[in-house]
Amino acid sequence: MPNFSKDDLLKIASSIFCAAGAVDDIAQQVSEVLVLNNLAGHDSHGILRIPEYLKSIETGEIVPNARPEILSESVTTALVGGNWAFGQLTGLYAVDLAISKAKKNQVSVVAAVQAGHTGRLAAFTDRAAKQGVVMFMTIGTTMQPVTAPYGGSTAVMGTNPMAFSLPYLGGAPISLDFATSAIAAGKIKVAHANQENLPPNSILDKYGRPSIDPQDFIDGGVLLPFGGHKGYGLALIAELLSGPLIGSEKFPGINKKNGIFIFAFDAEIFRPADEYEKSLEEVLGRIKSVPPREGFKEVLLPGERGVRSVERREQDGIPVAESTWKAICLAAKSVGVNL
Amino acid sequence: MPNFSKDDLLKIASSIFCAAGAVDDIAQQVSEVLVLNNLAGHDSHGILRIPEYLKSIETGEIVPNARPEILSESVTTALVGGNWAFGQLTGLYAVDLAISKAKKNQVSVVAAVQAGHTGRLAAFTDRAAKQGVVMFMTIGTTMQPVTAPYGGSTAVMGTNPMAFSLPYLGGAPISLDFATSAIAAGKIKVAHANQENLPPNSILDKYGRPSIDPQDFIDGGVLLPFGGHKGYGLALIAELLSGPLIGSEKFPGINKKNGIFIFAFDAEIFRPADEYEKSLEEVLGRIKSVPPREGFKEVLLPGERGVRSVERREQDGIPVAESTWKAICLAAKSVGVNL
Repeated sequence: MPNFSKDDLLKIASSIFCAAGAVDDIAQQVSEVLVLNNLAGHDSHGILRIPEYLKSIETGEIVPNARPEILSESVTTALVGGNWAFGQLTGLYAVDLAISKAKKNQVSVVAAVQAGHTGRLAAFTDRAAKQGVVMFMTIGTTMQPVTAPYGGSTAVMGTNPMAFSLPYLGGAPISLDFATSAIAAGKIKVAHANQENLPPNSILDKYGRPSIDPQDFIDGGVLLPFGGHKGYGLALIAELLSGPLIGSEKFPGINKKNGIFIFAFDAEIFRPADEYEKSLEEVLGRIKSVPPREGFKEVLLPGERGVRSVERREQDGIPVAESTWKAICLAAKSVGVNL
Repeated sequence: MPNFSKDDLLKIASSIFCAAGAVDDIAQQVSEVLVLNNLAGHDSHGILRIPEYLKSIETGEIVPNARPEILSESVTTALVGGNWAFGQLTGLYAVDLAISKAKKNQVSVVAAVQAGHTGRLAAFTDRAAKQGVVMFMTIGTTMQPVTAPYGGSTAVMGTNPMAFSLPYLGGAPISLDFATSAIAAGKIKVAHANQENLPPNSILDKYGRPSIDPQDFIDGGVLLPFGGHKGYGLALIAELLSGPLIGSEKFPGINKKNGIFIFAFDAEIFRPADEYEKSLEEVLGRIKSVPPREGFKEVLLPGERGVRSVERREQDGIPVAESTWKAICLAAKSVGVNL
């Protein structure tokens, strides 16, 4: 399997996006988010997406040189128009605005419309936590229905992710980032390739019947929400916050509408950072010291696995699956880049 | 089974709390929250709690005539000290403050420390949604550990509830309110009484082994978080927001510390209410029209079951279990009230 350093992947991704029509700083920002996701071990939101994004540029779903802009704002709020720029660019722009408003005015709510695919939300919310800002972020993707509501038999919601990040200056941010669907479509593909069964309560077949066979999803099945009616409820809240509440349907794209919703506040509203830090470490210590149950090595904190992956991959490099690498080379060639 | 009108229960509850040392308006406010929970069908957070609260008054965990106060505030934030007043009183006070700040300044973050038991969070967040304010509320109860972290074998967190409410002026608020534990301790007691098994992935026995036998929980077992690592992550976020972040451990009570965390914002930040309402109805209609899967009659919206219960019980009265009614009569007698 090919193996690359972080810097190599950054250069590769950046050169492809430049060749596809992005100026340097845009190509660089998008590539940084993708490679950060690879570092964190979330390869499905990393450079694997390059061929898909090049296709989106061709169809006009991503405008490679577009930049997000502020459509309206107050001291504590803003609505960002993404202009169908790369979703990573719009995500960074909206998050940085939310951070800056939270720093200046304690609390902020920022939304974005016309955003392309943003990928892993923790790549954005961690950025806030590292600057002493608590952030909640969610995206509902109504127009790509793949998840059934609890009790329903057909898809009506996206995988609607949600993230919460809190500062932890003595370590990496405490970062919870999850899809409200029970399983990612990508993991179903992997199970299918390996001829493995899915965990129970992950999918329904096309007739709305529970199944553990990945083929049943591929043949027109749907994802279930995680955690029954509670996960469904969260998926719906994601949908409403990033849709009807912010008005994302007023800003349609070529074949979809897409909204981002962010809530942020200064972590020092209620107490100084050093007091928070001390109390946080006490709670985290208590949780980490819980003896693991059978089948587990240890109790992990949200985001801990990702932090370890970053440490490992910064040192040992980032392995890229043969098929992913071939697809990237082919996509690169289509815009005149020979890797 | 005895059956009471809403007004009868309000009078009964109020008279008991007055006899236990609360002044009229406090007794009234607490009773209104309890009876609202009964109306919504959440009897475990209703008048069933009266005997427990009277005991808490005896031990000093609830101070019946205490009132919450503002410890510090800005235009968009506040820290409320509950002074170990009834949790319902502190909850209402904090929520009304968050609503008022969100109305005036678009966005707010309000926290409360020294809060008694508040019960069902939607009783508070619905209040915001009915006034055009979106509200998120969470409570972590570190000091009453009953839930294991994902992968752990012993309890270290509470049932850490979370709620999100959004306005829906054409109907009842869209209201998601859930414990981050897989099951409520109360439901285990019911299963035990009925000699029924628990759903899988609800509890571990005292040795940290998965079990479906309610007796294993009673014999020193622990609750599991709902939805695996995702529900655990949410439980931890609840813990951190309402604990280290707001400093609830600086305000200990007789035998516990307790924090409430709220963020709220005006639902009209991004668009006028009528536009939101139209778009909301479109999304809700799409979800309600999903055909139910086998074993379900229809797809429900978060909070919909509660709304129907309110309609039914306002008309037909509120049934109170024989054992609950006996316990209330006994508790009432202890403060000199003959029911």
